[in-house]
Formats: sequence, structure tokens, C-alpha cells
Amino acid sequence: MRRIGSCLVAIAIAGEVVALMASGSARPASDAPAIFITKIPVGYRDWRMISVAHEEANLNSFAAVLGNDVAINAYRDGKLPFPDGAIIAALHYRFVPSDENNKAFGQAQSFVAGDPTNVQFMVKDSKAYASTGGWGFGHFNQDGSAAGDTLLKTCAPCHARASRDSVFTRYSR
Amino acid sequence: MRRIGSCLVAIAIAGEVVALMASGSARPASDAPAIFITKIPVGYRDWRMISVAHEEANLNSFAAVLGNDVAINAYRDGKLPFPDGAIIAALHYRFVPSDENNKAFGQAQSFVAGDPTNVQFMVKDSKAYASTGGWGFGHFNQDGSAAGDTLLKTCAPCHARASRDSVFTRYSR
Repeated sequence: MRRIGSCLVAIAIAGEVVALMASGSARPASDAPAIFITKIPVGYRDWRMISVAHEEANLNSFAAVLGNDVAINAYRDGKLPFPDGAIIAALHYRFVPSDENNKAFGQAQSFVAGDPTNVQFMVKDSKAYASTGGWGFGHFNQDGSAAGDTLLKTCAPCHARASRDSVFTRYSR
Repeated sequence: MRRIGSCLVAIAIAGEVVALMASGSARPASDAPAIFITKIPVGYRDWRMISVAHEEANLNSFAAVLGNDVAINAYRDGKLPFPDGAIIAALHYRFVPSDENNKAFGQAQSFVAGDPTNVQFMVKDSKAYASTGGWGFGHFNQDGSAAGDTLLKTCAPCHARASRDSVFTRYSR
């Protein structure tokens, strides 16, 4: 079972490789009990695109990062911190070569999204998730399982390193 | 001026490199005069995501492929050929490493969308574009200029190599 992911920079799991983002040097967000996202936000696949990303190494992932209306509007308006209600979704896929595209190009150069691996969410609620920078984190694997607390506790400390309200992904015009 | 692109597999221009997809072996779609897209479809940046792609080599591009409602519904319903009114947009960006993300990961592995380079469109109208497989093609550079006929004439022959109604990009769940 693939159930280990990492922070919402843009992650997917390649094969059955376990690639935890846990870091001994990470700053704990708080001593308060962490609260995580346990239900997949409705309709996220219809949200608008924020940007795309790729991770090499063990993750070997392709990500499409989408946002609900609150998140998209905040991005477009340059509003920081993100207002309550903003949700960012990172849809992760395997990063695979495309034989069909390569034939059309006449050389090997094309990579596309392969099988989906997991979807990760950041939900902004400055009160409910005060102990983790105002963001609740969630990770749902393609097989329907959700990541447990051990993984999810690594999200906030890593995202705290991002300079824009704990969000790594920048908006692409 | 960057004004050379290629077919809608997922292309962007890296630097000022010219990377034409013209191929002497490509099958001409028809002897009829080709008709191209000369205006950017309104609201395309708000369309839903079809998938993502990356081209290496000279293009070194990141693509987010979006579709209007007709296109998205056709993809989800597995409807081929695409119905008239379907529009597919490929938003191309430079493929660049992310220093911020790499610091968070503790190693160099993260790539994100850099500056936008161009947007390409395929518009389905089986009558208007009968001579090019039912699709009209358009290419608009970030600087506002549009590609000329010389480039656009290379789109249909290349896309004719795609097995699904001249469309390379597959829908990602």
C-alpha cells in the first residue's frame, strides 16, 4: 500500500518507494494537538489550475496543483496570508515517458502524467488549524486510503519553510 | 521574438531556440487552404485541467493542458471524435528548477513552471477545419504575437499521428 507522501511542494510516490519528508531539523509547529484533513474536498478535480510541478529522485512525480475559488482569487490578487476557506490540491501522477509523443517528435523527449498516485490538500482555517500555521493537511492515496498522523505531522514543519504563507506553489499565468 | 512552437503535444520554447516540428515525412492533411485560429479563446485560463506534460531537449517546456466544458465532457465520457465546440489549450512555461523547493527537500530534485512562453489551441469545428482533421490550430506567444501560417501548417500533419482524433494529450483523473 502506498500511503507515504510528503509536503505539498509536488510529490508522488514512484513505485513502492517510501520517501518520507520527516526531518530532524524541522521546527515543530506547536505542541498543540495537530488536526488533519480526513475527507477529500468535494469537486476538487473541477478546480482551476494554479501551476504544475515535477519532482525527480525517488518521487519521480508529476503534479497538477489546483485551487478552489478562494485560493485562485487570493493568488490572482496577490493576497497573503491566504484567507480562510482557501484550499489547494496537489494531484500527483507518475512521471512517465510517452512513446506516442516521442514517435511524433522523432526523438525521446516527451514525458506525461501516468497513473495517479495520490492527492494532497491544504485547507486554510486560521482557527481550526492554528497549531499548524493555519493550514490543515491531508493526503489521500489512489487506492482510497488516507495517510495517517505520522506522515501528516511532517507537512506543516516542511511547509513552514515556504516564504508565502507556507505555500510553495506559485501561480502560473 | 519567440514565435516558433510546434504541435500541441506539449511544447514551449527554451531560450530563443527555434524548434520547428516541420517534417518532410509528414502527411499533408489536404490540398485545401488551411484555416487557423487567429484570436485567443476567451476565458481559457479558467478552464479545467486535462493533464500536464514535459518536453526535454531544446524545448525544455512544462505544459498545463486545459479544456473547455465541451472538451472536458468529451474526455470524461470517452467520446471520440471530439464534438464540435471542443477546445484544448496547452499553456507552456519554461521548465526551471526551484531553489526554494530544493532547500525544503534537502536535495536538488524539484522543477516548476517558470515564465510562460506561449499558449496553443486546438478548436474543433468539423466543417470549418475539414481540411485539417476538423481541428483549427493556433499559437500565441507570451509577447502577444501570433504564429504565422508557416508554423501553423505543421500542426495538423503532426497531430494526425495521434491515435485519438489528432489529440495527443490523455485525460488525467
